[in-house]
Amino acid sequence: MNLHAQWIVGFVDGEGCFHVSIVANRTMKLGFQVIPEFVIVQHKRDIQILYALKSYFGCGLVKKNHGNQYSFCVNNYEHLYYKIIPFFETHLLKTKKRIDFEKFRFVVKSMILDRHLTSEGLEELQKFVKHWRFLNEV
Amino acid sequence: MNLHAQWIVGFVDGEGCFHVSIVANRTMKLGFQVIPEFVIVQHKRDIQILYALKSYFGCGLVKKNHGNQYSFCVNNYEHLYYKIIPFFETHLLKTKKRIDFEKFRFVVKSMILDRHLTSEGLEELQKFVKHWRFLNEV
Repeated sequence: MNLHAQWIVGFVDGEGCFHVSIVANRTMKLGFQVIPEFVIVQHKRDIQILYALKSYFGCGLVKKNHGNQYSFCVNNYEHLYYKIIPFFETHLLKTKKRIDFEKFRFVVKSMILDRHLTSEGLEELQKFVKHWRFLNEV
Repeated sequence: MNLHAQWIVGFVDGEGCFHVSIVANRTMKLGFQVIPEFVIVQHKRDIQILYALKSYFGCGLVKKNHGNQYSFCVNNYEHLYYKIIPFFETHLLKTKKRIDFEKFRFVVKSMILDRHLTSEGLEELQKFVKHWRFLNEV
């Protein structure tokens, strides 16, 4: 299945999610892990779309969620920074999801710069993600 | 806001709905009204997308649903037949929503041919829509 870049933008404007979670993890030096994720969820009847996206971006995983739901998920921050983010910088999202994308990009770029591995950087990201969530709940 | 045709296809693959309801209506000769609807629902923060779609297709209405939800809705069957359907015949949907679109097209074409105004035609459409819903629930 060939995907057109603008089709992908429209589909992600509808179905995509740029999400960051920061979770406690004892194996990390600072006790927390920053997990950025670009996710698209579909019913299993459209799993071929998820594989086509995986192939288009050359990264990520297709996995089962719950019930009949499957997702295409990219959470490797280098893949996000070098493959996913440049695509959406070239092909702009049209919905307000673009604001989420820009915040997401800030987090991933901070990780590329290893800021999440310093106490100050991690604290900054925690505040940033908390404020981002707050804005989305308003 | 300029919309690219492929962006629209991707967005509708994600967010669009091709739906037909057949409801009792005493003002109709046969006692039932066939209502085909092409609908896209968005949070009010993206209402400008809905207006851009209305402008692109040159038909339909943007209206408030409930809470913060708004929709772009086309239910005039001539507008559906002459404006919406040709677009998706030229620019094919990639998800299984294309099957819904093809069934939707059958219903709208039947209406263009006035089949919904005959007892046999209406009965055929009632069975068709019932079976379509059944398949989508399986």
